[in-house]
Amino acid sequence: MKILLVGASGTIGRAVRDELALRHEVLSAGRHSGEVAVDLTSPDSIRSMYQTVGKVDAVVSTAGKTFFGALQELTPENNEISIRSKLVGQMNLVLLGLNHVNDGGSFTLITGIIMDDPIVSGTSAAMTGGAIRSFVKSAAIEMPRGIRINNVSPTIVQESMETYGPYFPGFVPVPASRVAQAFRKSVEGGQTGQTYTVY
Amino acid sequence: MKILLVGASGTIGRAVRDELALRHEVLSAGRHSGEVAVDLTSPDSIRSMYQTVGKVDAVVSTAGKTFFGALQELTPENNEISIRSKLVGQMNLVLLGLNHVNDGGSFTLITGIIMDDPIVSGTSAAMTGGAIRSFVKSAAIEMPRGIRINNVSPTIVQESMETYGPYFPGFVPVPASRVAQAFRKSVEGGQTGQTYTVY
Ligand SMILES: NC(=O)c1ccc[n+]([C@@H]2O[C@H](COP(=O)([O-])OP(=O)(O)OC[C@H]3O[C@@H](n4cnc5c(N)ncnc54)[C@H](OP(=O)(O)O)[C@@H]3O)[C@@H](O)[C@H]2O)c1
Ligand SMILES: NC(=O)c1ccc[n+]([C@@H]2O[C@H](COP(=O)([O-])OP(=O)(O)OC[C@H]3O[C@@H](n4cnc5c(N)ncnc54)[C@H](OP(=O)(O)O)[C@@H]3O)[C@@H](O)[C@H]2O)c1
Repeated sequence: MKILLVGASGTIGRAVRDELALRHEVLSAGRHSGEVAVDLTSPDSIRSMYQTVGKVDAVVSTAGKTFFGALQELTPENNEISIRSKLVGQMNLVLLGLNHVNDGGSFTLITGIIMDDPIVSGTSAAMTGGAIRSFVKSAAIEMPRGIRINNVSPTIVQESMETYGPYFPGFVPVPASRVAQAFRKSVEGGQTGQTYTVY
Repeated sequence: MKILLVGASGTIGRAVRDELALRHEVLSAGRHSGEVAVDLTSPDSIRSMYQTVGKVDAVVSTAGKTFFGALQELTPENNEISIRSKLVGQMNLVLLGLNHVNDGGSFTLITGIIMDDPIVSGTSAAMTGGAIRSFVKSAAIEMPRGIRINNVSPTIVQESMETYGPYFPGFVPVPASRVAQAFRKSVEGGQTGQTYTVY
């Protein structure tokens, strides 16, 4: 398969790339990294990425910025960071990509455990996860040409413990390579509308 | 209690108003209706509503526009209708309202069954429900001064069957007055972080 991976340079993205590249041609995309440039916050940038890349069999996202901070610091402006990047950015990757995915292909987006199991300072990020989960479940029933769509919801990964660990007391980390298996299941399997939790 | 009800003139809002007004002082708000004018899509309008109203014991929303249409017609632009109104509008009602709610007060937002049980043409609306549900669950753990937050997720109501019934084949409608009981549970009860499904 030819797979477009947005966020390939990230902590989770690198593990997903390593896993998928064993069997597939993986095209990496990101703002400052990868073979193709894309900024998910800009619909025009997403359109131009698809023009450059042509048809693919799978689109995978391990990208999306969110605002982290106390609820009392969550202003409408801060919240827009999460809305524009992880929420609308990932949705637009699907909406603008429908005609660029081959018959029977797939989309796989990323969410996260805190949509179900909240942490202090994670409200804006949690919100984006809930949005993407319901988007995926609903979009799955209207996908054309046998195209599937799923999302992967990881708990904190071991590789991020040094940076984010203090925000996740009592959360048991998993290796990013374990999260990559859920992405593999989505891309190479046959299910659609699913949320693959890796908790 | 003094209760601010945004969307009081709507199909569900009227039933919620009838129920809550039996025991409380209810202030109705909306763009074109009610005692106080507010447009949820504008943070400044929300701020000025709170200035006008002063302190309240509960804020209830039965408002929020969403885009309905086939997935293939769901453009980034159409999706913004749902993002700005039902999603960000309701979030901002909370974020900008925190200091206007008395100790031990509450927020109650509205979602909907299609976030769990999708229908054709409902993807953008379903997404907003998932977002608000995770927002509520996460915000609940950081609410100051004993303030609570919940959401009510109704199935289609009997009063909307003529307009929306054809989109909901096999969904069993409930009277709006039944949905109003879930709002009452949220406002007068003690729970927080909940999604009250009325399916
Ligand atoms: N790490 C965890 O433990 C964990 C757990 C659960 C969920 N998650 C979620 O998983 C996602 C990835 O996490 P991560 O830790 O791997 O992040 P990360 O290391 O910061 O990597 C983010 C990746 O996304 C790309 N990216 C960021 N903003 C972008 C944009 N606007 N357009 C296009 N690409 C963009 C980055 O590349 P460029 O900088 O080149 O754009 C990078 O490749 C996040 O949404 C995070 O919330 C992470
Ligand atoms: N009806 C159902 O069967 C059903 C089932 C599940 C979920 N829902 C959800 O419940 C919510 C209410 O549904 P409904 O059928 O009662 O809607 P509705 O009859 O159209 O009423 C909407 C109410 O919200 C107000 N409103 C709309 N946009 C606003 C804005 N930008 N700022 C402030 N107020 C605004 C309207 O007043 P103004 O026009 O004066 O602003 C009106 O009072 C919707 O989000 C809908 O998706 C409905």
